[in-house]
Amino acid sequence: MDVGILIVGNEILDGVVLDTNSNWLVRRLRALALHIREFITVRDEVPEIAKALRRMVEDGCDLIITTGGLGPTHDDKTLRGVAAAFNLPLELNKEALGIVERQYRTFYERGVIRTSEITEARRKMALLPRGARPLDNRVGSAPGVLLEMSGATIICLPGVPAELKWIFENEVLGILKERVKGLMRERILSLPAGDESTLSPIIDEVMAQVPGVYIKSMVQPYAGKGHIRLWISAYGDTEDEVEGRISRAVEKLMRKLREGTQ
Amino acid sequence: MDVGILIVGNEILDGVVLDTNSNWLVRRLRALALHIREFITVRDEVPEIAKALRRMVEDGCDLIITTGGLGPTHDDKTLRGVAAAFNLPLELNKEALGIVERQYRTFYERGVIRTSEITEARRKMALLPRGARPLDNRVGSAPGVLLEMSGATIICLPGVPAELKWIFENEVLGILKERVKGLMRERILSLPAGDESTLSPIIDEVMAQVPGVYIKSMVQPYAGKGHIRLWISAYGDTEDEVEGRISRAVEKLMRKLREGTQ
Repeated sequence: MDVGILIVGNEILDGVVLDTNSNWLVRRLRALALHIREFITVRDEVPEIAKALRRMVEDGCDLIITTGGLGPTHDDKTLRGVAAAFNLPLELNKEALGIVERQYRTFYERGVIRTSEITEARRKMALLPRGARPLDNRVGSAPGVLLEMSGATIICLPGVPAELKWIFENEVLGILKERVKGLMRERILSLPAGDESTLSPIIDEVMAQVPGVYIKSMVQPYAGKGHIRLWISAYGDTEDEVEGRISRAVEKLMRKLREGTQ
Repeated sequence: MDVGILIVGNEILDGVVLDTNSNWLVRRLRALALHIREFITVRDEVPEIAKALRRMVEDGCDLIITTGGLGPTHDDKTLRGVAAAFNLPLELNKEALGIVERQYRTFYERGVIRTSEITEARRKMALLPRGARPLDNRVGSAPGVLLEMSGATIICLPGVPAELKWIFENEVLGILKERVKGLMRERILSLPAGDESTLSPIIDEVMAQVPGVYIKSMVQPYAGKGHIRLWISAYGDTEDEVEGRISRAVEKLMRKLREGTQ
C-alpha cells in the first residue's frame, strides 16, 4: 500500500510551525509495512489542496492522509479541497455534527468556553464531502474524516498534534490493521568511519546480495567526530523472514568493512 | 518570487530523520519577503525527483531549492533528477571537482579519512547538469549547485544541516538579495481566549479592512489551558508601510476582541 501525506497550512510553509506530524505518522505507518511515497505541503487554498490530492491519486497512492485545516476558522479549507478534488458536494453530516456538539458541550462544562452554541463557524466542521464519514475526536472539536474513493482511501486529520494522535490511535489504526499484510523491521548501525564515499560500493554489493533489504548510509550531522550511521530495513511476510534478511545484511556488511580496513 | 522546496530522501519519508532544513530555509527566505508556495518530499529515485521539479516549474515557482541527495553514495540522486527533469546531460565540472578535491585533501590532512584519492564515488559529486555552476561548500564534500533555467532558478543543497546552512549563508543569500525587493514583518499575539471559532469572523473582518495583512489563528497545542496565538504578517515595499499595516491590524483586532467580551 502506497501512502501520501498532504500537509496543509501556511504556518508550516512560512516556518512559524515545524511540522512534526508527518514524521510521527510515518513512523506508525511504516511499522505496518506501508510504503511512504511522498509528502506534499501546500497553503490554505482550496485549489492547491485539490491539486495535491489529485496528484497523489495520479501517483498511485492508495492511502492519502491529510493533516491540518479542519478547524472552525476562515482558513481551515481541507474539506473544501477534498470536495473540489473529487467533484463532491459538502453536506451536513449528522454524526459529525453530534461529535462537534458533544465536544463543545464538554468544553463548556469544563469552563473553557463561554457558550456551547453551534455557531456557523462550528457547524462548518460537520460539513463533509458526500460519501465521507467522521472519525471521532475526543481531544478537540474537529472530527477526522474518512473517504473511500475509487482506488484510494483519504483520511483527514487535524493539525493539532494531540488531536491527530488521538484520532489515529483510536480510529485509524484499527481500520489500517484490517487491510495490511506484511512486516517491516529495521536496525541502525553506528560506525566510527569517517568517509561515506568508501562505503558506497560495499552497500551496493550487499543490497544486491540480499533481496528485500534496503541500506542507507547517513552522516551523523551532529557528531563531533566523523561518524556514519547505517540504516538497514527489510520487508517480508513473516518475522523470521524479515529478521533473517536484516541479519544476513548486517553480517555481510561487517565482514566487508573488516576486509576493507585490513 | 514564488518558492518551492524539494526535500529528497528516503530517510525523511520513512521517519528516521525529521526534516528541519525546510523550516530553517523558509524562515530565512521569508525575511526576504519571498512567498513559499509548496514543499514536496520524494524518495531517492530519479523519476520522482524529476517529476517533482517539473511540477514546481508548472506551478509557477521561480525559485526551487532542493535539499539532500548530493553526496557520494549510490542513493544520492538529486543531480541526476535535475538533469532528467530538464533533459540536460551530466558533465564533469572543473570548478566543482576543485571543491571536492580541496575538501578531501582538508579531511585527509585533519586525519578524518584514510586517503584523499578522488574515487569514482567522490568524482560523482562534480558531475553537474550542463549549464549549472557549483556553490562552494567548506563544511562537507558535496558542492551546492545553481542552475538557471528559462524562468526558474534551481539551487541544490546537501541534506546535512551544517553544510546546507553554510552554503546558504555564504553563497545563496548574496545571490537572492540582489534579486528581491520588498519586505515582510510579522508579530505574534498570545491571547487567553479558549475558543478559536469566535475569533473567525473578527479575523475575516480585520483582514478585509487592512490590505497586505495576513492573520492566522493557531491553537497552542502544548499550552495547559486554552490559549490562542494570533500570527499577523504583512508585506510591503518599505519598513514604514509594513509596520503601519501590522499596527493597524493589531489595533483593530484588540478593539474588536474587547468589544466581543463586553
